[in-house]
Amino acid sequence: MSNNRIVSGMRPTGKLHLGHFHGVLANWRELQENFECFFFAADWHSLTTEYDNTEAIRDNVAEMVLDWLAFGIDPEKSTIFVQSRVPQHAELSLILSMITPVSWLERNPTYKEMQENLSAKDLSTFGFLGYPVLMASDIIVYKAGRVPVGHDQLPHLEITREIARRFNYLYGEVFPEPVALLTETPKVLGLDGRKMSKSYGNAIFLSENGEETRKKVMSMVTDVQRPRRSDPGEPDRCVAYSLNHMYLPEEKKAEIVVACRGAQIGCVDCKKIQAEYLVETLAPFRAKREELAARPGLVGEILEAGNRRATAEAASTMVDVMSAIKL
Amino acid sequence: MSNNRIVSGMRPTGKLHLGHFHGVLANWRELQENFECFFFAADWHSLTTEYDNTEAIRDNVAEMVLDWLAFGIDPEKSTIFVQSRVPQHAELSLILSMITPVSWLERNPTYKEMQENLSAKDLSTFGFLGYPVLMASDIIVYKAGRVPVGHDQLPHLEITREIARRFNYLYGEVFPEPVALLTETPKVLGLDGRKMSKSYGNAIFLSENGEETRKKVMSMVTDVQRPRRSDPGEPDRCVAYSLNHMYLPEEKKAEIVVACRGAQIGCVDCKKIQAEYLVETLAPFRAKREELAARPGLVGEILEAGNRRATAEAASTMVDVMSAIKL
Repeated sequence: MSNNRIVSGMRPTGKLHLGHFHGVLANWRELQENFECFFFAADWHSLTTEYDNTEAIRDNVAEMVLDWLAFGIDPEKSTIFVQSRVPQHAELSLILSMITPVSWLERNPTYKEMQENLSAKDLSTFGFLGYPVLMASDIIVYKAGRVPVGHDQLPHLEITREIARRFNYLYGEVFPEPVALLTETPKVLGLDGRKMSKSYGNAIFLSENGEETRKKVMSMVTDVQRPRRSDPGEPDRCVAYSLNHMYLPEEKKAEIVVACRGAQIGCVDCKKIQAEYLVETLAPFRAKREELAARPGLVGEILEAGNRRATAEAASTMVDVMSAIKL
Repeated sequence: MSNNRIVSGMRPTGKLHLGHFHGVLANWRELQENFECFFFAADWHSLTTEYDNTEAIRDNVAEMVLDWLAFGIDPEKSTIFVQSRVPQHAELSLILSMITPVSWLERNPTYKEMQENLSAKDLSTFGFLGYPVLMASDIIVYKAGRVPVGHDQLPHLEITREIARRFNYLYGEVFPEPVALLTETPKVLGLDGRKMSKSYGNAIFLSENGEETRKKVMSMVTDVQRPRRSDPGEPDRCVAYSLNHMYLPEEKKAEIVVACRGAQIGCVDCKKIQAEYLVETLAPFRAKREELAARPGLVGEILEAGNRRATAEAASTMVDVMSAIKL
């Protein structure tokens, strides 16, 4: 049942940070070499938690897609599109809603969890309750065989699989049950040692310039158990190192570990070194981003072509759906 | 705020009976003379209660629309279309779901009521819970100013108005709040004295022939407190008369009332008279229906034209919606 097609989406929160890079983009860039990929900006999903704050969604989509492109997500290889421009996602979602028990949605572990964690937001809407139905539609409207997910998203994919199974049972085999492509992603810490997140204000963005990045790295927490320069430090406890070691060559890492543990280098100097490697790693990406941003209309054209391609695929699935339901 | 546009839909249950005629069609036929009317077959709504029984929906749409046309719902005056062929209903429904509190839907009086009354059906789905959202979308996607409803449907229209108001409040004025066009409809009794309904098996269909109608009228319950031919009867208690008096001329009604109360006429003879008037009333409709049914492709063409017209209107509303939400 599983085929070579992959669907994956990202909510348009605006410019992307290092957490997105390691969490999703690096994975996407690899996947597009071996799979037929559909990558989309999930702007309708933004409404599930942000219906009262939509001012920035359109800009956020453009900035995010610019980051994707700069990072090497390639419109020649992958279909890059915007969810709300493919109305078949809504159409199939409506149909799937008719066969999805409310109890499946209420039992969704992240439902109660998000309501507790995001208590400042209004998550009491019908749309928020139903977002796993929309998510199922996003995936199966392309008859995708695989979905890249982290461990925490497995319950969502399970609902998608259950909905696809139920549809097939009721109306005949139309959808493959998409299989999880489990991706291990490193935990990326932000400036303050919490998980990197735009909303925590602790993120390093892919689009910022080297000067800003340097400043941010210099402000990072290090090993809090090394109050004095003369105390020996421990890189395993150092927030700055936890982020930046990913950008250091092996020999440089070894050197820093020894120097830190031997109190031969202070945190300020050490972070200066770390910052340079990070800035250097990001430099080609930033150059590429600037080059792309200088071409007006480019993102729009790429998305339009992607929207067209996605719509054609989704429309073809809907023909099968309507004929199966006999509507 | 209210304008001259009306939207009204009917679930495709197949051939229509006298209850539909007096309940809806007679009203529609009048409305189309003074309003810009959008009349649709609500096939997506059928899925809210019949998702596991979709075999007949397509045929039911065709038979129902044939009844509409035969009855004088005029495609030159009104836009006649099929809900599922205008995907904007689904698109707007998804968007409205994002701003509709679950509690509004749970509080919907008919929600619990239908779950209790139709306990043999699975009404535990997300789609069934959300049908007032779809209904709101059906109406406001055409920016309708008025909706013809009976008293029992006022709570639904109230949810539609609340949703429209909430959208306007959040994103700016896009939708008129549709106003109820209250319609008084006579209660039409079926053969057994219960409300006429296809599912009770007590209905007289607009499409059946005179012989069938006669047979059905002759099988009707009369005045159960008149066991003998020689007992005086009471037309106000007579099920057959309750239905058929609507088709009798005034003088005939007066004649029957007197003869029944005076035991001058027996129920069998009386029903024979009643049946003739009913058959005669329905005859031109039936002739028209046969004439239309003999033109292959006619219903399809009318619906296609209507779908196109409805889609154009709905698409234009969606441009306003997307620009208001800034999606």
